[in-house]
Amino acid sequence: MNIAIVLKVLGILLLCVAVSMFPSLIVALLYGEKTAFAFLLSILAAGIAGFLLFSVKVREDVIRYREGFAVVSLGWLSASIFGALPFLFAGVFSSFLDAFFESVSGFTTTGATVLQDLEMLPYSLLFWRSFTHWLGGMGILVLALAVQPALGIGTLQILKAEFPGPISAKLTPRVSGTAKILYKTYLTITAVQVFFLLLGGMPLYDSLIHAFGTLGTGGCSLKNASVGAYNNIYYEIVIIVFMILAGVNFALYYLAFKKKSLMEFFRNKEFKVYLSIIAVYMIIITININGRVFPTLLESFRYASFQVASIITTTGYTTADFDLWPDLSRALLLSLMFIGACAGSTSGSVKIIRIILIFKYVQQEINSLLHPHAVKAVKIGDMPVQGSVLSNVMGFTVLYLAIFVLATLLILTQGLDLVSAAAAVAACLGNIGPGLGAVGPSSTYANLTNLTKIILSFCMILGRLEIYTVLALLFPRSWKK
Amino acid sequence: MNIAIVLKVLGILLLCVAVSMFPSLIVALLYGEKTAFAFLLSILAAGIAGFLLFSVKVREDVIRYREGFAVVSLGWLSASIFGALPFLFAGVFSSFLDAFFESVSGFTTTGATVLQDLEMLPYSLLFWRSFTHWLGGMGILVLALAVQPALGIGTLQILKAEFPGPISAKLTPRVSGTAKILYKTYLTITAVQVFFLLLGGMPLYDSLIHAFGTLGTGGCSLKNASVGAYNNIYYEIVIIVFMILAGVNFALYYLAFKKKSLMEFFRNKEFKVYLSIIAVYMIIITININGRVFPTLLESFRYASFQVASIITTTGYTTADFDLWPDLSRALLLSLMFIGACAGSTSGSVKIIRIILIFKYVQQEINSLLHPHAVKAVKIGDMPVQGSVLSNVMGFTVLYLAIFVLATLLILTQGLDLVSAAAAVAACLGNIGPGLGAVGPSSTYANLTNLTKIILSFCMILGRLEIYTVLALLFPRSWKK
Repeated sequence: MNIAIVLKVLGILLLCVAVSMFPSLIVALLYGEKTAFAFLLSILAAGIAGFLLFSVKVREDVIRYREGFAVVSLGWLSASIFGALPFLFAGVFSSFLDAFFESVSGFTTTGATVLQDLEMLPYSLLFWRSFTHWLGGMGILVLALAVQPALGIGTLQILKAEFPGPISAKLTPRVSGTAKILYKTYLTITAVQVFFLLLGGMPLYDSLIHAFGTLGTGGCSLKNASVGAYNNIYYEIVIIVFMILAGVNFALYYLAFKKKSLMEFFRNKEFKVYLSIIAVYMIIITININGRVFPTLLESFRYASFQVASIITTTGYTTADFDLWPDLSRALLLSLMFIGACAGSTSGSVKIIRIILIFKYVQQEINSLLHPHAVKAVKIGDMPVQGSVLSNVMGFTVLYLAIFVLATLLILTQGLDLVSAAAAVAACLGNIGPGLGAVGPSSTYANLTNLTKIILSFCMILGRLEIYTVLALLFPRSWKK
Repeated sequence: MNIAIVLKVLGILLLCVAVSMFPSLIVALLYGEKTAFAFLLSILAAGIAGFLLFSVKVREDVIRYREGFAVVSLGWLSASIFGALPFLFAGVFSSFLDAFFESVSGFTTTGATVLQDLEMLPYSLLFWRSFTHWLGGMGILVLALAVQPALGIGTLQILKAEFPGPISAKLTPRVSGTAKILYKTYLTITAVQVFFLLLGGMPLYDSLIHAFGTLGTGGCSLKNASVGAYNNIYYEIVIIVFMILAGVNFALYYLAFKKKSLMEFFRNKEFKVYLSIIAVYMIIITININGRVFPTLLESFRYASFQVASIITTTGYTTADFDLWPDLSRALLLSLMFIGACAGSTSGSVKIIRIILIFKYVQQEINSLLHPHAVKAVKIGDMPVQGSVLSNVMGFTVLYLAIFVLATLLILTQGLDLVSAAAAVAACLGNIGPGLGAVGPSSTYANLTNLTKIILSFCMILGRLEIYTVLALLFPRSWKK
């Protein structure tokens, strides 16, 4: 392990974190909040730490796979630690663990909260929570790569380790070029959403918070009742549309823009399956809750569609307490937590391309039982899929489920009931936010034990970094020279 | 598809089913029960159907993979249908579906029951229920192969399709020889258990019922409170030991006998992992229920050990209502339902060898991330594992979980709660029997809707035949000439 280069990149990352706190500082100053000092102090802490790490002397300028994994895993851990400082310095939390949980939940775009009453919070801190979603959605290291192109050889390993999905999109020959394109697209769509929210009469501040939460598929709101607090159909439609847009592979936007054709979307298998799953879930849940929870079909569809879009994209905004819905709808939403949206989007969980590949894999297996000697390659559309990608996907899926089971069992030692524990892990591992039961939409994660919060924080990071990146680091072999 | 040969083998199978009803007929005659007529009628029905199918003219004497799958899938369906007749003719059930559910549950060694009060049932029918466990445990087609050695070329395909586990044990060059050895071993261990139960004072009839239920890992008792009704520690210890023995690969007994060395067991990786999992679960659950459910550590261990042995071997006997235990214990037992015992045993569920292979697979994946160009074969002990076996195992596991989720969602449309629905599917797919909540140890499957019973029956057959065998048949390609 080339520790020097790892530390140097971590330094760049922390400098980025320091810079990213400035908008929140400005909000604090605009609203005349005392939290300005908390942000100043946090900027200083992250800045100094970042500067010290950045000045580490590097002999060998190469980032191999193992360094890539280390940079990303440790990078997310450090960002979460320094991102917790504003909460701590502002006196919102008395325990560091709670501040850390909130920060991890922000960066990983989970949106699970340990705050009992959001509406008591200063504007600047609510802003910071949402802004961490936005940063974490596309990737904090992708950002670092975009601003620091001449980092050294092998930055592709960092992109690969942080990028969501089994096949990493390299849109341009240079990694920093790809990073820049991704962030430009991201910024544009965010701006468009803010515009549409403003158009409907939402205040600028609220629009920014919700656009960050939507595009990052995070789900932090400034209201205790989330988006439901506005009870405004226009806002809901805008947010549904942009949640679904945030769940699309960002490379597709670039391709469609470059080729000036919307057909690029419908040439993509994953995109089509994504829309189909959304449609099927919306219809079944609408039928299930109609008459039972809401009196009319239209109202049922209004709430079903918002919750489905929110959970499949792993955003976690809510307009209704789906924990009170019939068990079929609850189970469907729980199953949706294990699907997620497209690879290369800001969403979490397993992702649709993997679900497709799993189906293909199983189909191939059954075929090979009937024709043991026939060898047929797995394809998506016309593209053949490499065997190594397939086995990576299968390994990922099994690991994902194993971690889900293990974490649920661990949390059950802490007194939660079965459904709440399973839903809490599913919601944190999939970076969704609200779960069922004790961690349902009308509750928070505040009353859980410390061990539970630590396990769930770890799950959020594992989920965001898609497991392998973190696990590879835990292998003793990674640390050998 | 060579339909003629499939029908012919089904004929042999039904003749076996007819013959296998004679012991129950004898029990009916001994106890002077009217059910004797029900058994006579059932024997006639199965016998005539079997004879007619057996007389089908076969042109080509070859059984390929597709015919193997068809024989086994349709064989289990037919055996379950004819096995339901005694219940129906005796007037125990008014609906055929209930009789069918009970019969499927028997042959697949699940032991889930739709009978509200077992103790009202005639002796001969209780005997038949347990005897179907014993037949289904080792395999009804393995039995057919043992008695009809000159069936034709390719009987290995039948053995493979019915035999539990990813690697089929071919102990002798001839398949019928393997089938005979398996049944001899099975019979011997059953006789030893009956001996030990008699030694402790259990009546012969009760001993037979429980030995069939134990060795087949089925779990049908003649008491509503299962083995717990006796409240006898000696019986419990005997049954724990023989449940664990029934969960061992039967090929190991043959090897140990042939080489006259008990070390054969401890040379087997799966056997060691099997014992370790049992030990770990017993300890954790003992600690979890001690003081909360039972006052002393010894008593906690007594009940924890029985329930753990019963669930990991997928037997389903109970001595305590574990649905009343703390949620951690309930969740642990639920997780155990997805493990099962060794391949080549009479147990159901995923099986330990697959769990081991999954771990190896994931380990290999993580390794290949760190060393993308290193190729390392997966080994169990010193034996290299073929890539095709690995991908079969991964496909199986994913399919198993997909069916679990899908069936749970379907059953949720029928008004069961989330935990009960999930546990019902887990318990039926894994051929265990009792689940949690509405289908917990103190309840039965009687009050479920018809659709639920159909789905669960299908799950039991899918679980027993390890999915692929049934699914392959559903592929249109299987039916092509």
